[in-house]
Amino acid sequence: MAQLLDRIETPRDLRGLTYEQLQTLAGEIREFLVRTVDGIGGGGHLASNLGVVELSLALHRLFDSPKDKIVWDVSHQVYVHKILTGRKDRMHTIRQFGGLSGFADRKESEHDVFGAGHAGTSISAAVGMAVARDLKGEDFYTIAVIGDGAMTCGMALEAMNHAGHLGLHRLIVILNDNAMSISPNVGALSRNVNKLRVDPLYRNAKREIGELVEHLPLGRQVWEGAKRVKASLRDLLVPASFWEQFGFEYYGPIDGHDIRELEATLKAIKKVEGKPVLLHVLTEKGHGVPEAAADPIKSHSGTYWLKKTDPSAPPPRPTYSQVFAQAVQELIESDPRVVAITAAMLEGTGLAPVHANHPGRVFDVAIAEQHAVTFAAGLATQGIRPIAAIYSTFLQRGYDSVVHDVVVQNLPVVFAMDRAGFVGDDGKTHQGFIDISYMRCLPNMVVSAPKDERELRDLLYTGIQHNGPFAVRYPRGSGPGAPTNLPMQALPIGKGELLREGRDIALVGFGAPVTECLKAANLLAAEGIDAAVVNARFAKPLDEELLLGVAQSTAGIITAEENVRAGGFGDAVLELLADHGLADRYLGALAMPDAIVDHGPQATMRHLYRLDAEGIAAAAREALAGRGATSNTATPTPSLA
Amino acid sequence: MAQLLDRIETPRDLRGLTYEQLQTLAGEIREFLVRTVDGIGGGGHLASNLGVVELSLALHRLFDSPKDKIVWDVSHQVYVHKILTGRKDRMHTIRQFGGLSGFADRKESEHDVFGAGHAGTSISAAVGMAVARDLKGEDFYTIAVIGDGAMTCGMALEAMNHAGHLGLHRLIVILNDNAMSISPNVGALSRNVNKLRVDPLYRNAKREIGELVEHLPLGRQVWEGAKRVKASLRDLLVPASFWEQFGFEYYGPIDGHDIRELEATLKAIKKVEGKPVLLHVLTEKGHGVPEAAADPIKSHSGTYWLKKTDPSAPPPRPTYSQVFAQAVQELIESDPRVVAITAAMLEGTGLAPVHANHPGRVFDVAIAEQHAVTFAAGLATQGIRPIAAIYSTFLQRGYDSVVHDVVVQNLPVVFAMDRAGFVGDDGKTHQGFIDISYMRCLPNMVVSAPKDERELRDLLYTGIQHNGPFAVRYPRGSGPGAPTNLPMQALPIGKGELLREGRDIALVGFGAPVTECLKAANLLAAEGIDAAVVNARFAKPLDEELLLGVAQSTAGIITAEENVRAGGFGDAVLELLADHGLADRYLGALAMPDAIVDHGPQATMRHLYRLDAEGIAAAAREALAGRGATSNTATPTPSLA
Repeated sequence: MAQLLDRIETPRDLRGLTYEQLQTLAGEIREFLVRTVDGIGGGGHLASNLGVVELSLALHRLFDSPKDKIVWDVSHQVYVHKILTGRKDRMHTIRQFGGLSGFADRKESEHDVFGAGHAGTSISAAVGMAVARDLKGEDFYTIAVIGDGAMTCGMALEAMNHAGHLGLHRLIVILNDNAMSISPNVGALSRNVNKLRVDPLYRNAKREIGELVEHLPLGRQVWEGAKRVKASLRDLLVPASFWEQFGFEYYGPIDGHDIRELEATLKAIKKVEGKPVLLHVLTEKGHGVPEAAADPIKSHSGTYWLKKTDPSAPPPRPTYSQVFAQAVQELIESDPRVVAITAAMLEGTGLAPVHANHPGRVFDVAIAEQHAVTFAAGLATQGIRPIAAIYSTFLQRGYDSVVHDVVVQNLPVVFAMDRAGFVGDDGKTHQGFIDISYMRCLPNMVVSAPKDERELRDLLYTGIQHNGPFAVRYPRGSGPGAPTNLPMQALPIGKGELLREGRDIALVGFGAPVTECLKAANLLAAEGIDAAVVNARFAKPLDEELLLGVAQSTAGIITAEENVRAGGFGDAVLELLADHGLADRYLGALAMPDAIVDHGPQATMRHLYRLDAEGIAAAAREALAGRGATSNTATPTPSLA
Repeated sequence: MAQLLDRIETPRDLRGLTYEQLQTLAGEIREFLVRTVDGIGGGGHLASNLGVVELSLALHRLFDSPKDKIVWDVSHQVYVHKILTGRKDRMHTIRQFGGLSGFADRKESEHDVFGAGHAGTSISAAVGMAVARDLKGEDFYTIAVIGDGAMTCGMALEAMNHAGHLGLHRLIVILNDNAMSISPNVGALSRNVNKLRVDPLYRNAKREIGELVEHLPLGRQVWEGAKRVKASLRDLLVPASFWEQFGFEYYGPIDGHDIRELEATLKAIKKVEGKPVLLHVLTEKGHGVPEAAADPIKSHSGTYWLKKTDPSAPPPRPTYSQVFAQAVQELIESDPRVVAITAAMLEGTGLAPVHANHPGRVFDVAIAEQHAVTFAAGLATQGIRPIAAIYSTFLQRGYDSVVHDVVVQNLPVVFAMDRAGFVGDDGKTHQGFIDISYMRCLPNMVVSAPKDERELRDLLYTGIQHNGPFAVRYPRGSGPGAPTNLPMQALPIGKGELLREGRDIALVGFGAPVTECLKAANLLAAEGIDAAVVNARFAKPLDEELLLGVAQSTAGIITAEENVRAGGFGDAVLELLADHGLADRYLGALAMPDAIVDHGPQATMRHLYRLDAEGIAAAAREALAGRGATSNTATPTPSLA
């Protein structure tokens, strides 16, 4: 009955516990985690958190948070840390609107010293904290906890390199090696690291050969012997030497579920002076809960593994990710030039089944968005047509590759930007809130967004035919339910469509908001306001003729997009109208706010920021009421009002 | 006099030469390089090119370009390659307007299979080409030539990881280890790689101990011996094993100036099947030309080492980089919170002398912009005020760190974005053409640009006092010559200044174009047009009061900025005007084109794209003539006309 856990309000409450009590506590925490994630239903990173129960306990016993800084990479494994740092009673609100974040968050607790959501940032942040400490003459430990998947991020290796160069002391990197990031790891590096895991003889052999080497004679005494010893020896020394090359002292690998071993090792590491330490810890995702351990991908997020499905319920509409993946599969099967690329997001992008069917045509490059994009550029130079499937928020990581390798060389790469717009319970680090801006400013780039599932298919097909960079952004979740079984067809680039004629005002949507514009027009029609609705389809190039036409035939245009205003679709329309002396027909841009948007259901957020039908209708009403249908004065943008 | 070189029109012409002739040819190429770079005066990457003469010859003899793909990382070392691939007669035009690019350029030659300018992209591109080859069932070699500095880029390591995972055959990575990228290398990794270089005994020792290990007995026979053997052994095996961890077969290190050794090794490497190869080549920057070898940094670019200075000439105005560095020094000396960060650009950013004076306060993190920014974020969490000095074009590489680590957490990091706007002879990969767009769309971010040197100092000071992200962009080269010896003072954020009153039209500049706006106003005054001139100083937040005021008191506003239009400063002004019913006072945005801009002097480019005084004046004249001073209709944007 969680008696021990009830007594833990701060990390200091862990100090007096025996190892036996800690074992019990670990079990109680696991139960609590399962109940918590079960309670919130719609997600939660259960398996990752189950994997770090003992590690979190050991860290909070051996170090003095928040004086000592524990930086959690990605930080979806931070639930145990939250439980131990005074947030146990609010854990039932996690990832819910107004509740705790699913990630570390500086605003939430002094124990969350660095927020995250993307992978690979923890070591850089920890290096910054350690350097600041030394500059200020303070004394504390800085600990970065990073998974094996995140460790293959380029920036994690950059940070290792810098930390080693600086010879930072009291900087500890804990490599939480669970042999699986979100998708099973790819990459030569992690494969080699995982040798440790797959070979049970490995650690014994290491000790034995280590002893042998300790006692090698000096000089050139040479014996006959098998050549393979050299290779074996090197392999055995490699896990250490690889990290030692970065200037780190290497400890491990140790069992991350053995609190006693963890604590003994951490105690030894705390005494290391003059250089940073890497501690290699082996953990199991989902540890202690067989269902989660058996299927860590499903229990990573989104589809909760314990969730019961009601067999009588109608089948849910496919998500945009699923529609995307199906289209990719068809493209691969009909066009030998097509390949798809993901950066460790086979599941999230929907590509896992396509990869299973066509393993040679779908490339998972690990958490490496920069490489993913430049790899695509290299493919494109040879006549291949790559589709780089990278979430809107993660493509920020590959931005220079988009600019320098794809755009400057005008190479045909299709960017499939999933999770564009409000992202839901992942929250502020994952909002797809700026991709229109950062793509629209690039020469040669086509920027498109589908109004529905069918158009996503058609835009992908169009992109593959286009001889230059082509971006398609689409939201998290399901679309309005358009058919997904029609043959894909090419759409004319730079052409939108008039979905509804109307005399009074024009509602112009880009992407998901098109559906809301249509609903808004219906709401307005009931009030006698006759709104035209345009599906822009392209933010670059714009359908100038169509947009100028509706601007002239109505009081003007309200734009709707799930991106910030600055540089977004609305700005593109405003530029167009201003260039044609029609700026007075710009009635406002509905956009995401110029603010950091926390987690919350998409519908809630759309309502809050006036990007649902009601908000769009209200904005139209205000624009028309402020002036009458023929006014020539613009009003402040509704979204900013 | 260059008789051999005269006969080389294509790489095939190298085939029949003896090693003695190749030696002679290498000498002729070095003479040609020095003459060429001397001829163009203003730059050229001489030392890098002198360092790869033999390597370029060997590659073009052993491989069949363009069928075999040679991808040059960064590609400033590509002059020899250009000479050997039919561009010898145009080398005198290199880096000049209308002439050859200083980098590899796909538009220039079929032998330039991948363009570059930024570091660390070559392996990703080469992996893409090799995968495309295998998909298409073709057969060729793909070779990436990458320096030791670029190899520490995160994305290069990401690409190594992927290549090893794929087990790509006929992919060869040549690590061109010259122990110095642009600045002397930092980073634990390169320091370890360089052990090879500094220790002449190293290679012999490696062979001897290698033989020893070959003949080790199996089993657990244990002798007494010194413990240090273990460490030595591991160290010696490391250069190989480090790269072998990535799944590569390692060859080297070999002497990169010994064509015979290069060719023998490359011949062996060509026969390796089933896995990628890393060849470690040791070269010397400036090899064969003592002055260049002695000072490779100066001969890297910009200041040409042979250039004679006229002692009677007046001292040149300090560059913005120098003004920046001086300001940083003063800030460091007056505020214990201030540190500066550069990503391998101590020279380019101007920070080298500051680093020399305050080595503990200026951090060179290697070519690692992502780490640089997140490192800054980590520092900022502990009360340090970091200035991240990263060129506009290179900050693209750190974009996700700007968003995810700095902006989302609203941390006080100052971004000093040098080389914003037209960048001159570095050309299209280096243009600072989108930073206003990619920064202005970010919540919490202040986006500023100084009109002159004094204001750069004041904006840096302002940024350090500001409790959030703060970007300052400034151009390459010198400013108008404002005093740089006045005490720095804080400027009110979001406040511009009216530099010149005027009734007819308002010219609003952001950054360097402010000076051109003032000159344009003088040109217009001579014609009886009375133009107001505004120094906007901030693109975010805007000085709304000032801008609305001049919009209302004149016919309207023309904006001028060195950034593309989409999402730029002009869009910010247009949004403001539209929100206040003044969109008819938007008379156009002068901006960089929505196109890839090649190399050419800044003055030429400013003239070409109407961002000099004449262009701005012409745009004002056209805006007024089209309608008279009180017209209410906007005209098409001049820059797009």
